[in-house]
Amino acid sequence: MALYVQKFGGTSVGSVERIKAVAEKVKGFRDQGHQVVVVVSAMSGETNRLTDMAQALNDDPAPREMDMLLSTGEQVTISLLAMALQQIGVPATSHTGAQVGIHTDSAYTKARIQRIETEDLKADLEAGQVVVVAGFQGVDEDGNITTLGRGGSDTTGVALAAALGADECQIYTDVDGVYTTDPRVCSKAQRLSSITVEEMLELASLGSKVLQIRAVEFAGKYNVPLRVLSSFEDGPGTLIVAEADQDEDAMEEPLISGIAFTKNEAKLTLLNTPDVPGVASRILGPIADANIEVDMIVQNVAPAGDYTDFTFTVAKGDYKATKKLLEETVIPDLGGGELRGDDNIAKVSLVGVGMRSHAGVASKMFRVLADENVNIRMVSTSEIKISVVIDEKHMELAVNALHKAFGLDKADIESE
Amino acid sequence: MALYVQKFGGTSVGSVERIKAVAEKVKGFRDQGHQVVVVVSAMSGETNRLTDMAQALNDDPAPREMDMLLSTGEQVTISLLAMALQQIGVPATSHTGAQVGIHTDSAYTKARIQRIETEDLKADLEAGQVVVVAGFQGVDEDGNITTLGRGGSDTTGVALAAALGADECQIYTDVDGVYTTDPRVCSKAQRLSSITVEEMLELASLGSKVLQIRAVEFAGKYNVPLRVLSSFEDGPGTLIVAEADQDEDAMEEPLISGIAFTKNEAKLTLLNTPDVPGVASRILGPIADANIEVDMIVQNVAPAGDYTDFTFTVAKGDYKATKKLLEETVIPDLGGGELRGDDNIAKVSLVGVGMRSHAGVASKMFRVLADENVNIRMVSTSEIKISVVIDEKHMELAVNALHKAFGLDKADIESE
Repeated sequence: MALYVQKFGGTSVGSVERIKAVAEKVKGFRDQGHQVVVVVSAMSGETNRLTDMAQALNDDPAPREMDMLLSTGEQVTISLLAMALQQIGVPATSHTGAQVGIHTDSAYTKARIQRIETEDLKADLEAGQVVVVAGFQGVDEDGNITTLGRGGSDTTGVALAAALGADECQIYTDVDGVYTTDPRVCSKAQRLSSITVEEMLELASLGSKVLQIRAVEFAGKYNVPLRVLSSFEDGPGTLIVAEADQDEDAMEEPLISGIAFTKNEAKLTLLNTPDVPGVASRILGPIADANIEVDMIVQNVAPAGDYTDFTFTVAKGDYKATKKLLEETVIPDLGGGELRGDDNIAKVSLVGVGMRSHAGVASKMFRVLADENVNIRMVSTSEIKISVVIDEKHMELAVNALHKAFGLDKADIESE
Repeated sequence: MALYVQKFGGTSVGSVERIKAVAEKVKGFRDQGHQVVVVVSAMSGETNRLTDMAQALNDDPAPREMDMLLSTGEQVTISLLAMALQQIGVPATSHTGAQVGIHTDSAYTKARIQRIETEDLKADLEAGQVVVVAGFQGVDEDGNITTLGRGGSDTTGVALAAALGADECQIYTDVDGVYTTDPRVCSKAQRLSSITVEEMLELASLGSKVLQIRAVEFAGKYNVPLRVLSSFEDGPGTLIVAEADQDEDAMEEPLISGIAFTKNEAKLTLLNTPDVPGVASRILGPIADANIEVDMIVQNVAPAGDYTDFTFTVAKGDYKATKKLLEETVIPDLGGGELRGDDNIAKVSLVGVGMRSHAGVASKMFRVLADENVNIRMVSTSEIKISVVIDEKHMELAVNALHKAFGLDKADIESE
């Protein structure tokens, strides 16, 4: 007998029919003798419906009232799922975040979980109940309802699994696992049977939107086995493990676990800027002040040492505002510099804990891209990731070539 | 400065526009220096939307889960109204029933309020906040969400007014007060400036569905001044007072305050039933067991004392089931009796605390009806009410004639 925490997102509970399907899936686990805690999101569309009403009434709704409003979404789902379970003979009880005792700070709309009470949930589980918990929400010390922000139901699931010492936290979603890359771009992409938390974090932040980053961090921190799998079809999904060496049977660690990519960035370069002290912060300071997030940063100092070239990327949506800021504020402040911008770029990243112990990943990556005549505009590396910026038009070509070259194509990994 | 508890029902908060209008109305009171607690229902249509989903998932949803589900309706409204108030510069805070501390028993879907915590509400009021409270809901001693049943928001309003010692509980609705009778049937019906709790109870139970009976009872018990008024237009509404003598300036107490009527009953008569001991309970017992509610009851014992005629009314929807029960169970059990039924009847009732001290109301009523050639089929009286059953087709005629004869027509009561 195992204890599972199963999280179903908004699409998985998006209609009465889908809620019935979730109830059947939960019943299957329970019939095998397992204990199940189910965490659910608001039905898809509900959060937008509520937000639209709020916007119509107040152009800047108070965060406390937004949390009061949006938390009703999951409350509807938990009661409906409990009813669906009871209908097919499964004893079930629903609990709001406040009822469980998911205690958070008071940072409305983006609260952080501080502690979770487990006594009542354990009693319900021992009594044979399936426990249905509202994701995404908690309560502060004054009894105000808080929410963890969009997608926060994943975090609720992982935090509950940690608090209850669950055997596994299963995140049901509309994909059947984590893939080596996006199958829509690379037809030979394949599902990974497992991936490390570190790799998952790099892939998630780079655009593989399978799981909320915070949930993965949480799982890593509290050593909760996390599995991503499909709500709609059966299958083992992808297990996200804390350490790569849990996969000890593997003959050799794969060098690369996955390839992430995005077309949603733009590149800005300041050429021939006087290399004054603190030039980087004088460029990025005003941008940060404008709440524009910067991703990759590369700085080259000219051989003579008196001029510097500074390049960075921002989200495509921030491109124009950033350009204006550089032209009107930063360049006059620095006393010179020539601005170049490009919003027809793509970023492609190789991710894998294997590259830590293997030299030569970068040089192999560059060689593969050169063989395909793909020019590299920018490079940035971390311990388990190498990212390159290339022309947007080359993205698909680059992803497919790298996927094959690093042995990720379907035929190349042993099927499960 | 006064403290008002103002309750707005589902129609009054049925859209974003109407919520804005409620916010403006509340602002008006606050601008005059008053403290305001607002109690709101779910937006009209919301409860049905939620109930439909529940029915689709479970043919007999657990009451606890229904309360969990339906209580989201008011939670949405309180947050939206708080936002609307804040938008127009009125500080406001929303509170669910559980957050206020509206403690109830655990009778899900029809819970009764046991006590209300007022400390937090008073602190908010003192801090200049408008307090927005979810009607219809509370919390039991184990932290489960309960509801007071449909229309229970009126009860929440009155109970809060009692607990806070409010100067007045104002129930905003889609009519501008309590009328002498239904204006759709009698064009000369007029709004009463005040009415006693007792009269209101008789009128409410007889079909003037302005207020929930429980709320009126509560107001009477805790001596809360209760005012019914329109959400959509300005006006003094109708004040419901505990004692008639609060209206001391009136030269003379009016004999009759209002005329209630309904076509929604049917009459059943058992003729020539053997007058055995306990005959009434042997007739009504099986009907009560079938959860059929009986309204008027008249029993005549034949002069010889060995046969009895027994007549009673039930809701029209229960007519066929009651008839069947009498034929198949009661008559065989009693060993005889002849069944007569009539579902083309109307019940017309005069209500007024004035009739307590004035003889002759009944005889005047009968004379007025006789003058109009209206046959009386059944009579029943209480201290402040006389009801007659007549043919359905005579109802409008009877109501108009009685309205005029008892001095209720518009021209006859001094206008305010």
